[in-house]
Amino acid sequence: MSEFRIEHDFLGDKEVPKDAYYGVQSLRAMENFPITGYRIDDALIDALAVVKKAAARANWETGHMEERIAKAIMEAADEIASGKLHDQFLVDPIQGGAGTSINMNGNEVIANRALEILGEEKGNYKVVSPNSHVNMAQSTNDAFPTAVHLAILTRLEGLLEAMGELKAAFEAKSEEFDGVIKMGRTHLQDAVPIRLGQEFGAHACVLGRDIERIGRTREHLYEVNMGATAVGTGLNADPDYIELVDRYLAEYSGFPIKGVSNLVDGTQNTDSYLEVSSALKICMVSMSKIMNDLRMMASGPRCGLGEINLPPRQPGSSIMPGKVNPVMAEVMNQSAFQVVGNDLTIALACEAGQFELNVMEPVLVFNLLQSITIMTNVFTVFRTHCLSGITANEDVMQGYVDNSVGVITAINPHVGYETAAAVAKEAIATKRPVREIVLEKGVLTEEALDVIMHPMEMTHPGIAGKELLEK
Amino acid sequence: MSEFRIEHDFLGDKEVPKDAYYGVQSLRAMENFPITGYRIDDALIDALAVVKKAAARANWETGHMEERIAKAIMEAADEIASGKLHDQFLVDPIQGGAGTSINMNGNEVIANRALEILGEEKGNYKVVSPNSHVNMAQSTNDAFPTAVHLAILTRLEGLLEAMGELKAAFEAKSEEFDGVIKMGRTHLQDAVPIRLGQEFGAHACVLGRDIERIGRTREHLYEVNMGATAVGTGLNADPDYIELVDRYLAEYSGFPIKGVSNLVDGTQNTDSYLEVSSALKICMVSMSKIMNDLRMMASGPRCGLGEINLPPRQPGSSIMPGKVNPVMAEVMNQSAFQVVGNDLTIALACEAGQFELNVMEPVLVFNLLQSITIMTNVFTVFRTHCLSGITANEDVMQGYVDNSVGVITAINPHVGYETAAAVAKEAIATKRPVREIVLEKGVLTEEALDVIMHPMEMTHPGIAGKELLEK
Amino acid sequence: MSEFRIEHDFLGDKEVPKDAYYGVQSLRAMENFPITGYRIDDALIDALAVVKKAAARANWETGHMEERIAKAIMEAADEIASGKLHDQFLVDPIQGGAGTSINMNGNEVIANRALEILGEEKGNYKVVSPNSHVNMAQSTNDAFPTAVHLAILTRLEGLLEAMGELKAAFEAKSEEFDGVIKMGRTHLQDAVPIRLGQEFGAHACVLGRDIERIGRTREHLYEVNMGATAVGTGLNADPDYIELVDRYLAEYSGFPIKGVSNLVDGTQNTDSYLEVSSALKICMVSMSKIMNDLRMMASGPRCGLGEINLPPRQPGSSIMPGKVNPVMAEVMNQSAFQVVGNDLTIALACEAGQFELNVMEPVLVFNLLQSITIMTNVFTVFRTHCLSGITANEDVMQGYVDNSVGVITAINPHVGYETAAAVAKEAIATKRPVREIVLEKGVLTEEALDVIMHPMEMTHPGIAGKELLEK
Amino acid sequence: MSEFRIEHDFLGDKEVPKDAYYGVQSLRAMENFPITGYRIDDALIDALAVVKKAAARANWETGHMEERIAKAIMEAADEIASGKLHDQFLVDPIQGGAGTSINMNGNEVIANRALEILGEEKGNYKVVSPNSHVNMAQSTNDAFPTAVHLAILTRLEGLLEAMGELKAAFEAKSEEFDGVIKMGRTHLQDAVPIRLGQEFGAHACVLGRDIERIGRTREHLYEVNMGATAVGTGLNADPDYIELVDRYLAEYSGFPIKGVSNLVDGTQNTDSYLEVSSALKICMVSMSKIMNDLRMMASGPRCGLGEINLPPRQPGSSIMPGKVNPVMAEVMNQSAFQVVGNDLTIALACEAGQFELNVMEPVLVFNLLQSITIMTNVFTVFRTHCLSGITANEDVMQGYVDNSVGVITAINPHVGYETAAAVAKEAIATKRPVREIVLEKGVLTEEALDVIMHPMEMTHPGIAGKELLEK
Repeated sequence: MSEFRIEHDFLGDKEVPKDAYYGVQSLRAMENFPITGYRIDDALIDALAVVKKAAARANWETGHMEERIAKAIMEAADEIASGKLHDQFLVDPIQGGAGTSINMNGNEVIANRALEILGEEKGNYKVVSPNSHVNMAQSTNDAFPTAVHLAILTRLEGLLEAMGELKAAFEAKSEEFDGVIKMGRTHLQDAVPIRLGQEFGAHACVLGRDIERIGRTREHLYEVNMGATAVGTGLNADPDYIELVDRYLAEYSGFPIKGVSNLVDGTQNTDSYLEVSSALKICMVSMSKIMNDLRMMASGPRCGLGEINLPPRQPGSSIMPGKVNPVMAEVMNQSAFQVVGNDLTIALACEAGQFELNVMEPVLVFNLLQSITIMTNVFTVFRTHCLSGITANEDVMQGYVDNSVGVITAINPHVGYETAAAVAKEAIATKRPVREIVLEKGVLTEEALDVIMHPMEMTHPGIAGKELLEK
Repeated sequence: MSEFRIEHDFLGDKEVPKDAYYGVQSLRAMENFPITGYRIDDALIDALAVVKKAAARANWETGHMEERIAKAIMEAADEIASGKLHDQFLVDPIQGGAGTSINMNGNEVIANRALEILGEEKGNYKVVSPNSHVNMAQSTNDAFPTAVHLAILTRLEGLLEAMGELKAAFEAKSEEFDGVIKMGRTHLQDAVPIRLGQEFGAHACVLGRDIERIGRTREHLYEVNMGATAVGTGLNADPDYIELVDRYLAEYSGFPIKGVSNLVDGTQNTDSYLEVSSALKICMVSMSKIMNDLRMMASGPRCGLGEINLPPRQPGSSIMPGKVNPVMAEVMNQSAFQVVGNDLTIALACEAGQFELNVMEPVLVFNLLQSITIMTNVFTVFRTHCLSGITANEDVMQGYVDNSVGVITAINPHVGYETAAAVAKEAIATKRPVREIVLEKGVLTEEALDVIMHPMEMTHPGIAGKELLEK
Repeated sequence: MSEFRIEHDFLGDKEVPKDAYYGVQSLRAMENFPITGYRIDDALIDALAVVKKAAARANWETGHMEERIAKAIMEAADEIASGKLHDQFLVDPIQGGAGTSINMNGNEVIANRALEILGEEKGNYKVVSPNSHVNMAQSTNDAFPTAVHLAILTRLEGLLEAMGELKAAFEAKSEEFDGVIKMGRTHLQDAVPIRLGQEFGAHACVLGRDIERIGRTREHLYEVNMGATAVGTGLNADPDYIELVDRYLAEYSGFPIKGVSNLVDGTQNTDSYLEVSSALKICMVSMSKIMNDLRMMASGPRCGLGEINLPPRQPGSSIMPGKVNPVMAEVMNQSAFQVVGNDLTIALACEAGQFELNVMEPVLVFNLLQSITIMTNVFTVFRTHCLSGITANEDVMQGYVDNSVGVITAINPHVGYETAAAVAKEAIATKRPVREIVLEKGVLTEEALDVIMHPMEMTHPGIAGKELLEK
Repeated sequence: MSEFRIEHDFLGDKEVPKDAYYGVQSLRAMENFPITGYRIDDALIDALAVVKKAAARANWETGHMEERIAKAIMEAADEIASGKLHDQFLVDPIQGGAGTSINMNGNEVIANRALEILGEEKGNYKVVSPNSHVNMAQSTNDAFPTAVHLAILTRLEGLLEAMGELKAAFEAKSEEFDGVIKMGRTHLQDAVPIRLGQEFGAHACVLGRDIERIGRTREHLYEVNMGATAVGTGLNADPDYIELVDRYLAEYSGFPIKGVSNLVDGTQNTDSYLEVSSALKICMVSMSKIMNDLRMMASGPRCGLGEINLPPRQPGSSIMPGKVNPVMAEVMNQSAFQVVGNDLTIALACEAGQFELNVMEPVLVFNLLQSITIMTNVFTVFRTHCLSGITANEDVMQGYVDNSVGVITAINPHVGYETAAAVAKEAIATKRPVREIVLEKGVLTEEALDVIMHPMEMTHPGIAGKELLEK
């Protein structure tokens, strides 16, 4: 008995493994595109199934599809959307054809599973056809981008949750370290005191803006181009169907999906994806900066700044006993570099759209979903394995502040810049503490100095010891 | 008589040209940074003057600066903000020091001009000091980014206006060409008909989103960090001063300026700039795609698509008589490439911030202002010299549609995909019109065909000849 | 009976699955870095095994390792290098720690397999230790980059072979189409005739330079930093060992491996990787341009240029009967975008090196190996599935040439630019052939014209009909 | 009397300022492209003049141009190449038309200056025509890229000289600091000792490779496509002329110029430019890393690493007395970001070539020349104003080493990793020096320790105290 069934398309016949749910067009795609060896993102497979379900329902209700066929398709789609048969999605994420291969892979798997449900043989496309039924009233050019929108929205939910938790963790650290004084640095040169909590608070602020920015990009993703068919004009798409399919997409996905106001625009332009990617990139650029700060503060233990400790996660060296490295921060840096690179790939793909369609969507979608996944993963492990366990070496930081010249800045308003500068100059030349010199020279009394040069006071807007000035 | 005056800073004495309004620190910066040979953007010089004026006013009102000094500074600042003395701003836009050199260039020019106003010699900084007076209660770390915010906001006004005009021009073309049928293309392969006006309409839609996206980035720019002083903690900054300086910045600039809620965050993070740049990049990526479409449609005149004509702007060849090239579209493509490259430079600069400050701001600001300027300029010339004068070769486009196979798609709902496919196959094989074959085979009557295969009807959602189906 | 064994490192105890060949440190890495879900490239796993084998041999010969231990390690390494146990390499390609996790994964798998070979229990590291034996005289900082060099060299062999075949295929097409005249285009505007074979020949030339450029980047990869140990100083590395390990690396790998002349440099700098990636990027930028040309020439079939036919590989539309898209060219474009994005990630990673090491190597290596793999794959399928089967529509191309105005250029030397321009002007205005007008006006005789305006003659340097001029 | 003369091209008449050397086509270009406001690079103007001179000579010798016309053109070209009339080159560097506007600007200025030399009126193009004479046998498509090649080669000479000097300066510092011991760092964590001179030596090594890489890119630039005319086929180009023009280009420029072997390839492909830019980028990525290291080592003065001192170049703060920032290193970082961004713009422009020409060359060339200029400038000022004046705080560095735990690594071969690890553990826990603990525990004698744990010995390959082992 043969292990294959014969399937046919307008390029000819082809042997398909007998048990396969995919069909002839998926097979052609596998042969054409053995590029990366990676799989399609599960969220995209799920989303495609949701699109097919909504379309079947809308076609049934508008009278274009028989109830039993529609119900079988919807049941098959439900199974896939719940995670089944994902091993039948074998086309490569980087592929020619604007997503036709992914779409047809989905159409074929659903058709064959629907056939099974109806008690028919796989491949009996006269009963349920991947094209005529599963893809009814759709084109790859509307069904695929719509699925992509849903997939991104789904993945963004996870990301935004991870970002919210990360922000909360930064805020918690900001509170925990609110009383920890340290030396502020600009140009890597000693500046004036700041509180460690303020730094973590600033990190939380950035992340807050990132959550807002990334969250806002969803607005354009809620708008889908179902009914656009081939070029956005809606040829052969019943307006009733369009209305219904959008409604069911909203219902099945849980997102506030609606039809894009201009279907031609919605079919050829991919700026909404680049908008998402740009927001991701902005976030990761800031995260990379934050990691650099943390790694510098944690440098040492004896020959670096030694201001904070990151939780040890794994031995850092096979040759140097006891060495531990800031691996969780480093993996965040690297994830940032990946996301920034992916953003460029996405921009290049966007630019390459032509006329009524952007055929470079597969590589675009691959990179965009990868960026979201990487960020979600790295935010979670960075938070749990690193951020939450950071501890402060308060003595070290206090020592830097006490020993610094920069604190002299606070006496400017009381004695003038010239006098302050003279003290600074002598401090630098003699390597002595500024406080000592101020007192020795009788510039200010010890009592005044205690009020004015209190490092903690320097970390708030205002002129320290202003009341002394007013005396 | 010497042509120089001697100025002094803590690195020593230096000869400054006697007539120069700039001083010793500007001079050091010129020697240190002969990098690009370009000048500082006028908008940034103006904005810096506005910042100095607002600060002088706030310092006067809070009692920290004498009225006559403040007034002289404000008068000098007003002159600069109205375009005077810009030739005294000679520091290079790419410079080390986080903008200190630009800030000091401004401080020195204003101080010396204020001295003149007060009837004093240039360089007599005991009366009006660049540091103690013009820069009072400021740090480069707050004054410079605040000026940058104002400069970007100013330049964005021009850009958004140019974008609005460009969008209107696309919309006008969309209306003008609403009745022009042409072949839609996906994958550069013939698809189904579309109207030329729909394509221009889609371009207007993208631009509409870009206007919205770029416009929205101003929100974060309205928030400035005046009073942050050195590291964002506000050391030595009187809270009354902070409130006043923000108020006067709003008044003098006309923008709804307000203080950033977290000064530490506002001083070290530059994500707001990257947000602007990303929005610019998204816009130019789409514009580049649109230019590619226009250039392809205008390809020819005899060996290309020949669908539209771009206004001739200059002879295109010294060897081929009569050749004219799409130069205005090409310069838009090139501007897009510049803006995308600039965006990368900006992202790199953002990532390089460390601790309390991003010292890479100068290169960031240089690229951001350049991007905005280029876009404003190219949008204006492209609109006036190209877009508005585009004409359509309606006959050529109609001929493509009439000769195409894709129009067969419309009969699918009436005769089934199989029958339509058979017609298509024969048409392709025999190179004959599909309409001819449909009639010859008696697939549909001439009357039905007139209704169903009317190209214009294919450009709207719906099933053409639906009423025939219901008979 | 427990399914776990207990392993220990200086961070504590951990349960390792009893059958696992990996150990405690691999396990920590898996927990720390669930980032991409991808696997380590097989070539890198093989290469790491080769490094361990060479090190074991060198350590044995210098008397630092017992023969039986060395032999067991070498046997285990051989197995892995021949493809076994790759399922034990489970750490994520994006990871903190500069490759320590990949290195330790290799050390642990080899140690445990060596223990098995010696008849010992897995985990009995007193007999064969991942650190003391498998990693003897090595640091991640030399063993890992050395393995990366070997892996890249291996992958480049496959790529260069694929490039050679692709170049040959372009050359074959260049010969095949040498007699096919077509219209040359600049600015997408009609220029003067060219032969289709010349275009394919130019593509082969670019690829020739790419082969040379990519091939040349191997020079720096042949230089490895074995013996650098922790920071490049070679602490604890016996000079005899260094010499031997390089010699055996060359022998086992087949590449002309040698020690880098400056180990400190070789340990901290990653410019050699960026050099490879840049060469890959340059190649793909050109390939993308070539694909764009092919897709435009193949545009149609009826509403485009229709100059060439790409072999149909899969149905292109579910809604438009008979539509076939240039999917193999499209997947090349997309691969190009991926490689350009990867190059940016690699550049960012390079820039982030600090002091004696670049800890961002994992993301760098992941992207570099991915780029090479993608290119090798896409070049092969593009050649076999597309390039080799391209056919030319000679009639269409000849028709364009015959109908073009640009051919008038050839009469310039005979009648002067002014006269030629007058003919061109009339041709454009009347839409008539230039030849007809030349004859009608008596500008040249039919005989002269046959010689001068022979399109094929225009495709070689020289003045057509020069002999006529000399009469 | 009118201040204008009337000039004419096939788009119509236009008033040109009477004194202007440029003409109608330059004027159109100025109106079309007010994009950046920058000027064309002087080196490109000079190079264009050299091309025109060589072409005039070749045309004269092949008998196509009258001697007196040729001599006037050559004289005019010589003047421009020596720096005159550059103020007549007013077209914007970012322009549509593949360089036609720059080429025509040159043709017009040379024609008008040649007319003057011949005693004729400006604009009397019947005598000397910008097109028929100055541009004889040329197209923008060969003359412009050839000029670009020469301009880049000229600018690269300056760059390579600056790089050579910079490398020498790094080497001088490497020798100067050869005896300065410091702590090596990986992951910003303390590793094992290294000499400061070794670090500077590694920097010199990178720069050596960069010089080699950048130098090598000249090979492809020596090959020019003169004679390609419009599309690379050489239509209307006399082979004798081609040979002569290349010979004179070599003679006049001093570079080993030769004709590219495939003119079609040489006209449409721009990979050679991307090759240059990639080499520049690789260099600047490494330079940015080096700057980061220097800035970290110079961090302080009291709250940072404080290992080295960069020469003070300008006051760093208006609020903090005595603050000096590493501005010369910062401007190098920023220059690196600019060059990396420019490289992206260049890659985008390369990818956008179509068919027989890359019309995006102007933006490509603008960015490439800018990158070279910036690098040349910044290398020079960084070397003279920073690198050469760096001093080492030897005590600080020695103190770190003495206090470090990492030095324990050296005793591994003598006492085993276990014992060393126990010492390390106690040292970390008790914050005591490892040497003290080793002696206290009797692990090694003081004499042995002096030999083995001598930091300087740790900075060379080998097992310190190997002779003790062999006893």
